Amino acid sequence: MNIGKRELTLLCDFYELTMARGYFHSEVRDQIAYFDVFFRRVPDGGGYAIFAGLEQVIEYINSIKFEDEDIEYLRSKGIFDEEFLAYLKNFKFTGDIWSVEEGTVIFPHEPIMTVRAPAIEAQFIETFVLLTINHQCLIATKASRIARSAQGRPVSEFGARRAHGADASIYGARASYIGGCASTSCTIADKMFGVKAGGTMAHSWIQMFDSEYEAFEAYVKLYPDNPTLLVDTYDVLKSGVPNAIKAFKSNLSEEQLKHCAIRIDSGDITYLSKKARKLLDSAGLTECKIVISNSLDEYIIRDILLQGARVDAFGVGERLVTAKSESVFGGVYKLCAVEKNGKLIPKIKISENAGKITNPNFKSLYRFYSKETGKAEADLITIFDEKIDESKPYELFDSEYVWKRKTMENYILRDLRVKIFESGKCVYTSPSVDKIREKCKKELDSMWDEVLRLENPHNYYVDLSQRLWDEKHELLKSKRK
Amino acid sequence: MNIGKRELTLLCDFYELTMARGYFHSEVRDQIAYFDVFFRRVPDGGGYAIFAGLEQVIEYINSIKFEDEDIEYLRSKGIFDEEFLAYLKNFKFTGDIWSVEEGTVIFPHEPIMTVRAPAIEAQFIETFVLLTINHQCLIATKASRIARSAQGRPVSEFGARRAHGADASIYGARASYIGGCASTSCTIADKMFGVKAGGTMAHSWIQMFDSEYEAFEAYVKLYPDNPTLLVDTYDVLKSGVPNAIKAFKSNLSEEQLKHCAIRIDSGDITYLSKKARKLLDSAGLTECKIVISNSLDEYIIRDILLQGARVDAFGVGERLVTAKSESVFGGVYKLCAVEKNGKLIPKIKISENAGKITNPNFKSLYRFYSKETGKAEADLITIFDEKIDESKPYELFDSEYVWKRKTMENYILRDLRVKIFESGKCVYTSPSVDKIREKCKKELDSMWDEVLRLENPHNYYVDLSQRLWDEKHELLKSKRK
Repeated sequence: MNIGKRELTLLCDFYELTMARGYFHSEVRDQIAYFDVFFRRVPDGGGYAIFAGLEQVIEYINSIKFEDEDIEYLRSKGIFDEEFLAYLKNFKFTGDIWSVEEGTVIFPHEPIMTVRAPAIEAQFIETFVLLTINHQCLIATKASRIARSAQGRPVSEFGARRAHGADASIYGARASYIGGCASTSCTIADKMFGVKAGGTMAHSWIQMFDSEYEAFEAYVKLYPDNPTLLVDTYDVLKSGVPNAIKAFKSNLSEEQLKHCAIRIDSGDITYLSKKARKLLDSAGLTECKIVISNSLDEYIIRDILLQGARVDAFGVGERLVTAKSESVFGGVYKLCAVEKNGKLIPKIKISENAGKITNPNFKSLYRFYSKETGKAEADLITIFDEKIDESKPYELFDSEYVWKRKTMENYILRDLRVKIFESGKCVYTSPSVDKIREKCKKELDSMWDEVLRLENPHNYYVDLSQRLWDEKHELLKSKRK
Repeated sequence: MNIGKRELTLLCDFYELTMARGYFHSEVRDQIAYFDVFFRRVPDGGGYAIFAGLEQVIEYINSIKFEDEDIEYLRSKGIFDEEFLAYLKNFKFTGDIWSVEEGTVIFPHEPIMTVRAPAIEAQFIETFVLLTINHQCLIATKASRIARSAQGRPVSEFGARRAHGADASIYGARASYIGGCASTSCTIADKMFGVKAGGTMAHSWIQMFDSEYEAFEAYVKLYPDNPTLLVDTYDVLKSGVPNAIKAFKSNLSEEQLKHCAIRIDSGDITYLSKKARKLLDSAGLTECKIVISNSLDEYIIRDILLQGARVDAFGVGERLVTAKSESVFGGVYKLCAVEKNGKLIPKIKISENAGKITNPNFKSLYRFYSKETGKAEADLITIFDEKIDESKPYELFDSEYVWKRKTMENYILRDLRVKIFESGKCVYTSPSVDKIREKCKKELDSMWDEVLRLENPHNYYVDLSQRLWDEKHELLKSKRK
């Protein structure tokens, strides 16, 4: 089931192959190329994103292999020569990769990953690297927003049935957990990654029996230790909750009664949850939890909590697993430098859209933390070989409004990226999803609340070093001449 | 790579398993259950949807098998008894399935698929059936809207890198093709399904060479028969188009010049395409095509064509492959009947949200075509054993405003569903994607334009037979008593 066991080598844009053949038959063949992965804006107008998907990128790269039937297919296209096909037969990735770790808080325009490899190899992996990172960053970021809106109440990812295919449900559950969900409904994600899976019953369970009460009682007897009964099949307040109360009280011990719950999946949640709470409390079931689901997202959760809804846990499905409010994470993969005869030559892409202009050269990515507060204050992108003396103040400036300047003092500097591949060999061990989730939580704790706000967040600074800014503007000038 | 070769049995919501164990230890065990798949509204406020994903549902059902490690995982959860686990070890689907065929135009509330099987089996396949159908119907429907907006110009699906994981790109390409795209950038979709894959170069190709012209010339020499040059790396009108013209004219024969093209991927497409057309025409390259891409969808394509943009073909990526404007297809899987001692007992689900009330009983789905125009006039849902005499008029009525009535005369009736599984055996052969795509085109041709409008379309009638309507309202009354 793992990515690494599947034959996904041909999951690439066709142009990776037309270009590969082109590089193969030209001087570019022996060039080393540097590609950055970065994104241009945070979905939903948010202030931050969560990085996820690295483990699957590693699995993919380790598994690249053109099988005979892949070669046969390519031959049938009639545009690839035998010399090139023979080369593909032995193709593997031999380069280096640096990346931020999963769970890291990331911001637009940062080189969250850099690939250094012979041009053909570096180019070839573009599509799969992007689709993996774009998907999991999208869902981890959305999950982080939703989990924060629930203010400490557990959120379970419920979206498998609305996900965009099998991978989207499996890796969507993984990314949701990294971003802050407490569990998932997706069983295989538990088996594969240890993302705790749970769930109790659908409406069909209730319908399958002759009456709602019989259905509830059968369930409570089977799973007396933590039954959650779905109470909205016929009528929440007139039928569902009263039947649930009766089923709980007639069948559970005092201890078991502390772990029971009801779930409401339709209707006005604020109203129904308040009324249901009263019914449960009046029956003495003050510890019975109320779980809600039904097309929730961070905005609805925030609003119903503001209105005093009595909810203990949330199940969030389609709007999380498809990131419905903005379903695209726009990560791109852009050439930033080539090595020619051992010399590094920075490359830039200009565009009619100013926001699409790239940052040239092989770069490093740092985060400044205040020694006083422990909070992250700004990120800095430098040319790879710049050294920063942490004992001295460092002046940051806005890349666009260059007169906006700020001097960092009394700071700790952290290099955000680690080496993942070295000469084609993976030199990194992916942590468990539990570890990644913890890291993500710690990362968020180091951010000012203003940056984490759902709407109109404070803009976190990501600046270029003076050397990098100068080099970029020199290149811009020369290319537009 | 096919679904059928992967171990996806545990890709189910956890509650399918808690319920399964419950059914196993109760009277429900021997009940035959009927589940309908249907959806409640068309995404984007559209008037119709396209059915897709059946081939993958079949592969999945044929491949269900609890492996030892699946059983081991379930045992570790501590809530499944050995008798039940032993049952799962030999679990397979033994029921019947009826479905509309891929490429069919479908409407809300229609039973597009019905599963009849022992309760545990019918319940178990819910999650995978839904995620497969929801995903491919979503993308096929979106592709249909986009292809129609292009008014006959070919649309290529370019979204692999922004898809929600590997399956979303592969099956998204498949569904896009069914819905009307002409091709894809996703190579593996070509190998697997014969969805024609194509593509030429990224910006990195241009940057990899010392100059834009050298990059263009190298490409044109390699692929002289149909080169498409990407002209927006530095400056479309001042650099890209002039260099492309020079590269074409210096390297191509008269015949080859008829098949060249340029691609613009940023900036104002209306303005740039008109200016580029003029430059190409002035140079005598009147047959050079202009391809555009850059966050397109049906609305932008409609608008730029209205403004006179000179575009011959479109590449559509993220907004198609993630259905960005509305990324959820809300297909559901609802119990509609059970068989007890050989007797069919209709089941209904009531809800606080009126739209969530289900249609009970095992049903059939028909489409009325006018003999005069050949156009589809209305769909009808009946109880499975109702017979309609096509030689006689048939009175339809609105299920909500029951005084709205219309008598069909001179019509042809088509049963929209075919048998897919019989006693667990697949009795249906999936057509090629080309055949499905043709079917979809024919289906759309049979719809009135008013139904196909992008916004505020005419409401296509999907009515219930009198018998079904009566039965539903009897059940509603009795359950809310």
